[in-house]
Amino acid sequence: MVLPHVVAPLRLPTDSAVDSAEHGQSARRGEFALIEQYFKNLTDQDGVLLGIGDDAALVNATGGPHSDLVVATDSLLQSVHFPAIASAYDIGRRTLSVNLSDFAAMGATPRWFTLALSLPVETANSVWLEQLSAGLAEVANRAGCALIGGDTTCGALALTVTLIGEVPTGQALRRDGAREGDRLYVTGTLGDGAGALQMLLKDDVATQDPRLFEHFYAPILRLDEGIRLRNLASACIDISDGLIADLSHVCTASGVGAELQLSALPIEQRLRRDFPDLCTDWALSGGDDYELCFSVPETRTGDLCKLIETGYLDATEIGIITASRGISLLGDDGCRVLVDSQYSGYDHFAG
Amino acid sequence: MVLPHVVAPLRLPTDSAVDSAEHGQSARRGEFALIEQYFKNLTDQDGVLLGIGDDAALVNATGGPHSDLVVATDSLLQSVHFPAIASAYDIGRRTLSVNLSDFAAMGATPRWFTLALSLPVETANSVWLEQLSAGLAEVANRAGCALIGGDTTCGALALTVTLIGEVPTGQALRRDGAREGDRLYVTGTLGDGAGALQMLLKDDVATQDPRLFEHFYAPILRLDEGIRLRNLASACIDISDGLIADLSHVCTASGVGAELQLSALPIEQRLRRDFPDLCTDWALSGGDDYELCFSVPETRTGDLCKLIETGYLDATEIGIITASRGISLLGDDGCRVLVDSQYSGYDHFAG
Repeated sequence: MVLPHVVAPLRLPTDSAVDSAEHGQSARRGEFALIEQYFKNLTDQDGVLLGIGDDAALVNATGGPHSDLVVATDSLLQSVHFPAIASAYDIGRRTLSVNLSDFAAMGATPRWFTLALSLPVETANSVWLEQLSAGLAEVANRAGCALIGGDTTCGALALTVTLIGEVPTGQALRRDGAREGDRLYVTGTLGDGAGALQMLLKDDVATQDPRLFEHFYAPILRLDEGIRLRNLASACIDISDGLIADLSHVCTASGVGAELQLSALPIEQRLRRDFPDLCTDWALSGGDDYELCFSVPETRTGDLCKLIETGYLDATEIGIITASRGISLLGDDGCRVLVDSQYSGYDHFAG
Repeated sequence: MVLPHVVAPLRLPTDSAVDSAEHGQSARRGEFALIEQYFKNLTDQDGVLLGIGDDAALVNATGGPHSDLVVATDSLLQSVHFPAIASAYDIGRRTLSVNLSDFAAMGATPRWFTLALSLPVETANSVWLEQLSAGLAEVANRAGCALIGGDTTCGALALTVTLIGEVPTGQALRRDGAREGDRLYVTGTLGDGAGALQMLLKDDVATQDPRLFEHFYAPILRLDEGIRLRNLASACIDISDGLIADLSHVCTASGVGAELQLSALPIEQRLRRDFPDLCTDWALSGGDDYELCFSVPETRTGDLCKLIETGYLDATEIGIITASRGISLLGDDGCRVLVDSQYSGYDHFAG
């Protein structure tokens, strides 16, 4: 129950599609009712024995003793992880995409997720909820995962997703396996996340590149790439905070360092043209790219190149793992500069 | 990453025990750093292959093909689910206890949980976090579950827990199995949750009954009782919103009705003495009791009575499942009144 006289319970406006009797109940319970109403279409998946509507969900993991369970939780808050002007559809797409990126980085297969939704009263209307559901469904269907439960409460707009999935025993991609001499790669291109943020925060460039808008709200899912890297990559992480910051997590966990070739950073042509002074900074420390950064032992680079050449993996070699700690950047002029994990701009490097 | 210039990232005060370099990172990442620092002691458990600190956690479900996974998510918000004056220790105990109650109602064994923590800047200090961790640990140790991951963000105080566990295939207690003639039972006593709330909201009775304070923040875990009811109860639910409201969920899911004997309701002696006019209302609709309400086929009531008589189950028979829909209350005078799931007070009944 909710504390009486302290805050008003979550009540939908009268034009809502929610049945008023059910609504009264949901307001008191703050539980599955809203999610049951708007998100039921997200639950039809194999392996779900009992979805939304009981005290807990029941699911059937198929892997048995030959697979491990994978679990990740991420919260996205309005004005922190997405702008206040974001549409419910885009919030839904981004929330699930960002969570799935952690699974890609583990080489894991997502199967189920729960959603804890904190909603302001003014947002709790049927149009908004249907759009959120559509955004979640769009990504969930592509990733092959099902919503199995959740909770709705009245408060500032925030979404917490917990993803549950599987990976064959011993094949999860971890942060701690990088060794001296391993080659470093990233999927896709870097800097687009920071470019998108720039676009979203400054109206004057809002119309320049719809590709960046799409990248921010629905970054490419790298789940297939993660699965292809099982038994091949020695370490892997997704780039949510910036290449340097995330690579430093790999280096710390593995007890190694890394050297990056600045000229090798994959930066999309249009980003390079539109933001020539910023794009390298963004690629190194901008964050929100949701690409994979991974290391591969030198003996396995032939196998990796085959994947790249045959179009099964969109990845670029960007550097090498070193025995000496820290991350160093190697410029076109052969100049090498050591940066720390707090590195936040090419200016510091140039200065 | 977080949106720059929109809100300040989560920063701990300088007297915090958190290392400042790690802190800078955690502020940007809004991820595991805080939880890693303060909650590491909650992760030492069997079956955890990789806990806090990578992109996702890896765990090993022991049941294999003979067990199903159980998943439940619940959010607790300040001033909604606990008063603003609640201590961090009590918030931790209540958050996990309330979540575990859903598992008790399923007859499930909890194994792991994640914590998404939204913290205001003024709360993000080491003393508060250590107390929260101690409260969570107290309950987690009793329940035998381990924290395997989480996320920290800056915002209004809110805690979302996702519990993951196991139940032998086909033995989960669900809401939809109650049949005409089944006997109805509840564990423990009813009305204490509402009594505790009354106490917490009105200072004048604050010193009357420390038992109620304890009940609110650390309700008795009924996990063992839920497990003993596997293969015995036909339906089960935990009483979070009040007996009538929760029983109505069972009745709706099972397509049946119920009749309750008012005189049979188990109400603690002291609650009955201190609140003679309110205690029956509270028992019927007060909520926050976190006891189990369950039905047992008449042919199995002998087995159930043995459990009760031998002290393995603290439960009381309170009524019977009926073919006709709705819930009716049977008074001492033989008067029968039909109530709906929105029932919120004995006054309505008396009137």
